[in-house]
Amino acid sequence: MHHANATGRPVHDRRARTGVWFVGARGSVATTAVAGCAAVTTGLYPPTGMVTETPAFAGAGLPRPASLVFGGHDTADCPLPKRAEDLTGAGVLPGGLARAVHTELAAADREIRPGGPLAGDTRTDEELITRFTDDLTAFRSRRELARVVVVNVSSTEPLPAPDATRLPPSSLYAAAALRAGCPYVNFTPSTGLHSPLLTEAAEASGLPHAGRDGKTGQTLLRSVLAPMFLQRALTVRAWSGTNLLGGGDGAALADPAAAAAKNAGKERVLTDTLGAGVQGEVHIDDVPALGEWKTAWDHVAFDGFLGSRMILQTIWQGCDSALAAPLVLDLARLVARAHEAGLTGPRPELGFYFKDPDGGPAGLARQFDALLFFADRLREAG
Amino acid sequence: MHHANATGRPVHDRRARTGVWFVGARGSVATTAVAGCAAVTTGLYPPTGMVTETPAFAGAGLPRPASLVFGGHDTADCPLPKRAEDLTGAGVLPGGLARAVHTELAAADREIRPGGPLAGDTRTDEELITRFTDDLTAFRSRRELARVVVVNVSSTEPLPAPDATRLPPSSLYAAAALRAGCPYVNFTPSTGLHSPLLTEAAEASGLPHAGRDGKTGQTLLRSVLAPMFLQRALTVRAWSGTNLLGGGDGAALADPAAAAAKNAGKERVLTDTLGAGVQGEVHIDDVPALGEWKTAWDHVAFDGFLGSRMILQTIWQGCDSALAAPLVLDLARLVARAHEAGLTGPRPELGFYFKDPDGGPAGLARQFDALLFFADRLREAG
Amino acid sequence: MHHANATGRPVHDRRARTGVWFVGARGSVATTAVAGCAAVTTGLYPPTGMVTETPAFAGAGLPRPASLVFGGHDTADCPLPKRAEDLTGAGVLPGGLARAVHTELAAADREIRPGGPLAGDTRTDEELITRFTDDLTAFRSRRELARVVVVNVSSTEPLPAPDATRLPPSSLYAAAALRAGCPYVNFTPSTGLHSPLLTEAAEASGLPHAGRDGKTGQTLLRSVLAPMFLQRALTVRAWSGTNLLGGGDGAALADPAAAAAKNAGKERVLTDTLGAGVQGEVHIDDVPALGEWKTAWDHVAFDGFLGSRMILQTIWQGCDSALAAPLVLDLARLVARAHEAGLTGPRPELGFYFKDPDGGPAGLARQFDALLFFADRLREAG
Amino acid sequence: MHHANATGRPVHDRRARTGVWFVGARGSVATTAVAGCAAVTTGLYPPTGMVTETPAFAGAGLPRPASLVFGGHDTADCPLPKRAEDLTGAGVLPGGLARAVHTELAAADREIRPGGPLAGDTRTDEELITRFTDDLTAFRSRRELARVVVVNVSSTEPLPAPDATRLPPSSLYAAAALRAGCPYVNFTPSTGLHSPLLTEAAEASGLPHAGRDGKTGQTLLRSVLAPMFLQRALTVRAWSGTNLLGGGDGAALADPAAAAAKNAGKERVLTDTLGAGVQGEVHIDDVPALGEWKTAWDHVAFDGFLGSRMILQTIWQGCDSALAAPLVLDLARLVARAHEAGLTGPRPELGFYFKDPDGGPAGLARQFDALLFFADRLREAG
Repeated sequence: MHHANATGRPVHDRRARTGVWFVGARGSVATTAVAGCAAVTTGLYPPTGMVTETPAFAGAGLPRPASLVFGGHDTADCPLPKRAEDLTGAGVLPGGLARAVHTELAAADREIRPGGPLAGDTRTDEELITRFTDDLTAFRSRRELARVVVVNVSSTEPLPAPDATRLPPSSLYAAAALRAGCPYVNFTPSTGLHSPLLTEAAEASGLPHAGRDGKTGQTLLRSVLAPMFLQRALTVRAWSGTNLLGGGDGAALADPAAAAAKNAGKERVLTDTLGAGVQGEVHIDDVPALGEWKTAWDHVAFDGFLGSRMILQTIWQGCDSALAAPLVLDLARLVARAHEAGLTGPRPELGFYFKDPDGGPAGLARQFDALLFFADRLREAG
Repeated sequence: MHHANATGRPVHDRRARTGVWFVGARGSVATTAVAGCAAVTTGLYPPTGMVTETPAFAGAGLPRPASLVFGGHDTADCPLPKRAEDLTGAGVLPGGLARAVHTELAAADREIRPGGPLAGDTRTDEELITRFTDDLTAFRSRRELARVVVVNVSSTEPLPAPDATRLPPSSLYAAAALRAGCPYVNFTPSTGLHSPLLTEAAEASGLPHAGRDGKTGQTLLRSVLAPMFLQRALTVRAWSGTNLLGGGDGAALADPAAAAAKNAGKERVLTDTLGAGVQGEVHIDDVPALGEWKTAWDHVAFDGFLGSRMILQTIWQGCDSALAAPLVLDLARLVARAHEAGLTGPRPELGFYFKDPDGGPAGLARQFDALLFFADRLREAG
Repeated sequence: MHHANATGRPVHDRRARTGVWFVGARGSVATTAVAGCAAVTTGLYPPTGMVTETPAFAGAGLPRPASLVFGGHDTADCPLPKRAEDLTGAGVLPGGLARAVHTELAAADREIRPGGPLAGDTRTDEELITRFTDDLTAFRSRRELARVVVVNVSSTEPLPAPDATRLPPSSLYAAAALRAGCPYVNFTPSTGLHSPLLTEAAEASGLPHAGRDGKTGQTLLRSVLAPMFLQRALTVRAWSGTNLLGGGDGAALADPAAAAAKNAGKERVLTDTLGAGVQGEVHIDDVPALGEWKTAWDHVAFDGFLGSRMILQTIWQGCDSALAAPLVLDLARLVARAHEAGLTGPRPELGFYFKDPDGGPAGLARQFDALLFFADRLREAG
Repeated sequence: MHHANATGRPVHDRRARTGVWFVGARGSVATTAVAGCAAVTTGLYPPTGMVTETPAFAGAGLPRPASLVFGGHDTADCPLPKRAEDLTGAGVLPGGLARAVHTELAAADREIRPGGPLAGDTRTDEELITRFTDDLTAFRSRRELARVVVVNVSSTEPLPAPDATRLPPSSLYAAAALRAGCPYVNFTPSTGLHSPLLTEAAEASGLPHAGRDGKTGQTLLRSVLAPMFLQRALTVRAWSGTNLLGGGDGAALADPAAAAAKNAGKERVLTDTLGAGVQGEVHIDDVPALGEWKTAWDHVAFDGFLGSRMILQTIWQGCDSALAAPLVLDLARLVARAHEAGLTGPRPELGFYFKDPDGGPAGLARQFDALLFFADRLREAG
């Protein structure tokens, strides 16, 4: 990707292209990311929500949005241009965008391959991993890509049973990424690389990876509010929350096992910052009437001076796909660049993006510091 | 205050005592601070909300709570033990506390001197400053105090007219603090040392001082939430807010000029972080039925990816005096120690506590970092 | 409109058509009403929000939506089909509707005449009333209408000064309605028929009329919640509220005089139900970033048994035009039918729709009862 | 209870006294009711929240608060004066009240008998019913009471299994009430008289009874807001809610079977008004940190004109015992008077008080009308 120029300093090959391979490529997040990347590239919309497009990342050598090539796996059939029209009706994509970026959506659609396993699929884990690996390597060579980052944005899968003998689907895709030499990002609470069966392969691969479970709403808020209570020496007694969401994620999380996977991450941010002993539960309700929009209510009961009882409540109303998509593009760019720079293993510098990060500090402000240091490091990596 | 021991390292004289002189000594905040300091000293209550009692400040040489001696100015007459009973009825102080710390309240009450000027007072500014200065120096010598920190916790005064020829009351007290050689803290939005007529004297005094306008609720929240939007590259379109409060502060802020003084600070935190151009107003309503409790509602309209419109709302329900009192004790201790350590002038390291600080970073997380650095500096100052 | 059939019972002439003349015909409410009436007539959308389309009004002889013919006055120029496109972009009208009902929008647009007076207009009140009257009678005869109902849906005008010698614009239009023999509805807080200069003419006209100030959001809520507190013998101490709204109404209400007009109605619902002595203010903020959407926060502090302090908060997020338009269609139909049935004067049975009604009960439930009785009365009127 | 005076009209014997027997007599609600009745009787506090003390009930012949004599069953031991002190610390009872009404609390405490069955109790249902019946009749004769109303205010018990062969405890107490000839009120969602095994006895008893599940907060709100949507022809798509509560009820409702019993009532108010098909769940979380205070958040997604999506949210913060106690006193008085007046069977006129009433209209306004008619009927009953 780099050549030494006359001054001896490496230069980025502006023609090099980077693949972004979505597991869940026909979902709302992936569709929004593909449409949004095209919208930003063509100047139709500003890159709101893309942290990597702020000045702090100038010169860090990230692949340009225009250089990203999209593909992915999915078990669904609906073509991306149609999905984008649906998302327009649901108020996720602005009117007219789906038509304006039809070419890019259709191009990504042609690079989507069947996911799995579906019910009744008789293939073994090994067969599935091989199939997915072949899809990845074929994409990379066919499109002449410098590298392909695999990003899991599929619906949350149930927590695997402790005695499960097969890998959950998210881990099959993760295993394929390792085998194909692809950096990996897990934006969901699903297992992915966190299976003990993959630990060794992940370490041996020398690939950078990042996860787990994108921090887009309620947990994002918690990661800035929990440190506030700590820094002010206020005692949080109970932190309770309810999430209402429709869309595919709402339906998936109506499964208690999937909700349990999601909630583990949500609680971690509190435990990491405030320690154990904070009362309160988190509910995730499937409310189809809300469509792609999500409402999260949080109620924090805390003690002040002399035992005075006080309360903070927050209500967050957002579009999950619009919150996730720019972060997914950020992560694809950052992990691609980390790979180019020779960085390996889990990247604790990316805890800014995750509910359940691979180490690094707790609290969004500290995590943002770590991200900025990472930008500096990438800048210096040449 | 320090002696060299056998090892040549200075030691703190544990018998030295520090005066805390409240302007507004019969108000809710001062009463809560006096009662609360006694409650913490005697172990009746933990020091919840006192940041200076967290491990980060161990060894920083701050005066112990038990070594603080309280006095102050006020234009009101109600004795502190009676005020404390009133605050118990209002739910600010826990049942039984006023009686348990009656001795300490009565002791502080004996050190309260008449404030001014009241309507019809014919004394000149100079006469008033002299009077207040004499009160301060008499307190220091009578109680054999190492130093006295003057802390303004009186009700917000109206913004002075641009062509005013007399100093506002808060500046009279601040001038007296300078003249008496007392470090000064302004926990209110009133003018205090910010009068151009006092700039020269403040610089010449070589005294440390800190201000302005304690950050206890809505603005505290804003100072953690605004950086979140910035760090996530989300575009805040409008930030609107309403405060409902009873008590003395509610009545004072029903005066539009006083509310204007208060709001300037509230808006500063947004402008410092997000720049100009954020729509929205802030209302402060006097609602006597709420007594000493305050409710603040904030509504933040922000844009995400592809122009998607999202909303965050927060509702903060707290007791203002219980939020303010531990911070006031923190500041008295920190500024006393800064004085002891020979630090002078405005202390930007204390921006953590203020809506309208004397420089330093914006955003609570950065301000907390600055405070921790300050603790280290005090620790090293010996 | 009626003929006796063979059985001697009157029948409605299904071919008769009713004019609806909007003052403010190019505004968001009028545009939504015209587009929505066409959408309902053609079956594109169900009549959600139109109370007159519920079974309780079957057989009451109301003019069918398909029989309504729209026109109006406005000082603005923007053609209705263009306004409808704008409202689609703002999320008020669903995608595709503006195009689907273009014919109906264009037809209404052709019936809009210049309003006034604009700045610099030298016409006297009498000249303006004559002009507006001529517009109304020309519309009625040109379109062969059984009757024309004038409905004020223009932006709130400032409260007229007590010593004003000229009629405010809303009263000029109201005077023209009287003169042209048109029933009149005032959906805004503007003066309209409430000018003492029009009292006599209104009584002499024998025309039915209804007002004032449509109850669409915060006040609607208050009119169901205030009776709850009363019925449960709970003591409301303070009722505070803040409204955030963009759009034209937000800008108009940024004028304190216009806001004062609006707030008078909002407070009336509390006073009528709970009596005087309830603390609290109402704020109306212009927040252009919210576009056509409105957020209203209410905070109710009330006492329960043994003086216990409790709180109810409500947050209402709605689209003002979508809330108003079906009620405006309801009112036009009801007042047209009242005219046909020979009813005259103010109609207290329509208090269900108004913040500041012409008599009748307080509390939405009682007002709904009154409306149902009115439906019965119209049904029996034949 | 009545004598004919010289005019032939019956008069109430002012000396007659009425027993109120609480199942759960040491719980928060019963303790608050006993203390509050004394506070109101002695004029210490106004009867806020007691609907029966409003002018509408003047002359209806209800037993005066001063004439009520309290007793009850409970499985707990803590004396009522001690419970009242605890409730003072928890902020339920105002400071000083427990001491002021110590005599009345101690008197009630002497009339509390052991409830059951506790774990390990080997008594049969019949033995328990006999025991409870004897307690009731002994109370009535010992205190020379005109009648005794049994009121269930104990913690919610789990829904009985469909194949259960024994009566749940609440039904044992209800059976004893029937056998002792006592009118019965079920203020909880527990089974009480709703067991099919008691149907025949209830009918044969000729006793008035009322239930089930007091409507004090979230459901009270729903019963006024649901009719609003219906009356305005707005389509409710989803109604979701979360309750946070500490205290004994919080712990009891942490049992999913008990929560299921509670939620059935909560949902009934929506179904009765809006029909089936409204999405949304209700959560009840045990949050011990909230003590006796309860927070209920509701989120209503509804459609307006042309499919516009709107949202109403409510947050109710109240003290459950302070909300329940005056209603419990109301019900005891009303049902006692109904008994005196010879009314029998379930009283649909009392639906105003219940989530899951014995018939009667839905919607609080209609239920209030029914209650007022009932007051008239009692007044006329002489």
